Amino acid sequence: MMDKTFSQWKQQCLSKVDLSKKGSVDQDIEHIVTLLNGLEQFFTTSSCSGRIIIIDTAAPGDSDVQKQNCIWLFVSHQKCTADDLVSALDRSSKDAVLKFEPFVLHVQCRKLEDAQLVHSVAINSGFRNSGLTVGKTGKIIMAVRSTHGLEVPLSHEGKLLVGQDYLHFLAQLANQKMEENLRRINRFYQNLQSALTTEKLQLQDPPDTQEPQHTIGQQGTTKEELSKTGVYKRRRRRDHPQADCCDGDGDSDVQELYGPLDLLILGGGDGGTSSPPV
Amino acid sequence: MMDKTFSQWKQQCLSKVDLSKKGSVDQDIEHIVTLLNGLEQFFTTSSCSGRIIIIDTAAPGDSDVQKQNCIWLFVSHQKCTADDLVSALDRSSKDAVLKFEPFVLHVQCRKLEDAQLVHSVAINSGFRNSGLTVGKTGKIIMAVRSTHGLEVPLSHEGKLLVGQDYLHFLAQLANQKMEENLRRINRFYQNLQSALTTEKLQLQDPPDTQEPQHTIGQQGTTKEELSKTGVYKRRRRRDHPQADCCDGDGDSDVQELYGPLDLLILGGGDGGTSSPPV
Repeated sequence: MMDKTFSQWKQQCLSKVDLSKKGSVDQDIEHIVTLLNGLEQFFTTSSCSGRIIIIDTAAPGDSDVQKQNCIWLFVSHQKCTADDLVSALDRSSKDAVLKFEPFVLHVQCRKLEDAQLVHSVAINSGFRNSGLTVGKTGKIIMAVRSTHGLEVPLSHEGKLLVGQDYLHFLAQLANQKMEENLRRINRFYQNLQSALTTEKLQLQDPPDTQEPQHTIGQQGTTKEELSKTGVYKRRRRRDHPQADCCDGDGDSDVQELYGPLDLLILGGGDGGTSSPPV
Repeated sequence: MMDKTFSQWKQQCLSKVDLSKKGSVDQDIEHIVTLLNGLEQFFTTSSCSGRIIIIDTAAPGDSDVQKQNCIWLFVSHQKCTADDLVSALDRSSKDAVLKFEPFVLHVQCRKLEDAQLVHSVAINSGFRNSGLTVGKTGKIIMAVRSTHGLEVPLSHEGKLLVGQDYLHFLAQLANQKMEENLRRINRFYQNLQSALTTEKLQLQDPPDTQEPQHTIGQQGTTKEELSKTGVYKRRRRRDHPQADCCDGDGDSDVQELYGPLDLLILGGGDGGTSSPPV
């Protein structure tokens, strides 16, 4: 019943015309979109690989709300040069703001467990602002979001507020963020593949089966693939320093929910998280 | 069973020492934290009312990851002056970045429906990056997050990259964001109160009861309170321009999931969302 609705949704969504400005999926995330849409339990509803933009708005304090009514002076899904920024800013007549907007992906999921798997992968890959939306009609959307941005005011009423050196520095910084963004995208892809493999193994094997690291499953999973999962586990710890918010410890809740044991039953064995569950 | 676990979690969490730097809940959101913790189906696990910070890091491209190893040059949960920024930057020896970090709140919820209610309220109040986390142990955390930030590099290896005029402009902009943040916080509080009232009415009244706008319920709900809900519904449309992402229409998924009819069965009657459900 529920599955029928989901596959109908999926068919309907994937047959729609892409209504984005660009009209197609960004090149750097095509492999992720293809992987997810090729699995029956997922389909992507929107995505952006990450971009550097400059927008000209009337209300500098509210560039987010005003995005609709503003002029796009520059958009790039690749690295930019200081010259790109300079020539974009030449056309500013209001308040221009440069933003680096990282990878974002919305995935509709068949079941809550499917969404939990993608969420776990997203968090472990460095996308700490990821989260689910569960609609009353049964729609489950998992949003992959990063905290990794940049939002820099550059002109006021058409007048440049910074010098050329600053624009050079900013272009460099935005490009570094673009690189880090790509690294996280690829980590997400690899972790997603590992998690899907692990999940498949779990479905095929009852939990008490010993020696899960032997070659099993349709795709011939080997020790090597399981150690990939191990790498991903260790990596996670480096990427998530203790968040420091004012009351409590911020996003550590999320880390705690998605401890290594949640996802990595097969690869487990190094003792799990160090902090006791609350 | 599940409720017992939740109330145990809640008791344990609320009896803990506040481990944040500040050691207490921020003043501007005390009413929200008190409201939620006073209801049996919720408790807050971390929060920040919003702040302007300047941090000095060794790796400018990775200020998010490096937050732990950096020096905090400035933190304010209220408005700032240009002088505040100047004197903070005087102490920079690495790469200083100013950030405006908006309101963030983590709420643990008893049931998925409780989390959906808070999520719906958050989205409708302008906190578009909000989302749920559902752990395998049954823990449900709703994170209220905004897209409304600022992240501006200001020094490189201790050398200031911008002029005094820029710092004046930036202080003004950060303060505008702080004001908008407070407006959204108060909207969230009001919408939360309305939604909780509406929910209570729904629980007491079977769906087919006619004339729901008459005075019913323990708290003597009147037409006035229902029209408050109406205001919130209209407001929602202004605050959520069509998101523009590269593939599809970004966060409009979330808006669609939480259309007015989801939350506002009692106040309904103006036709719901204009876009057909996908």
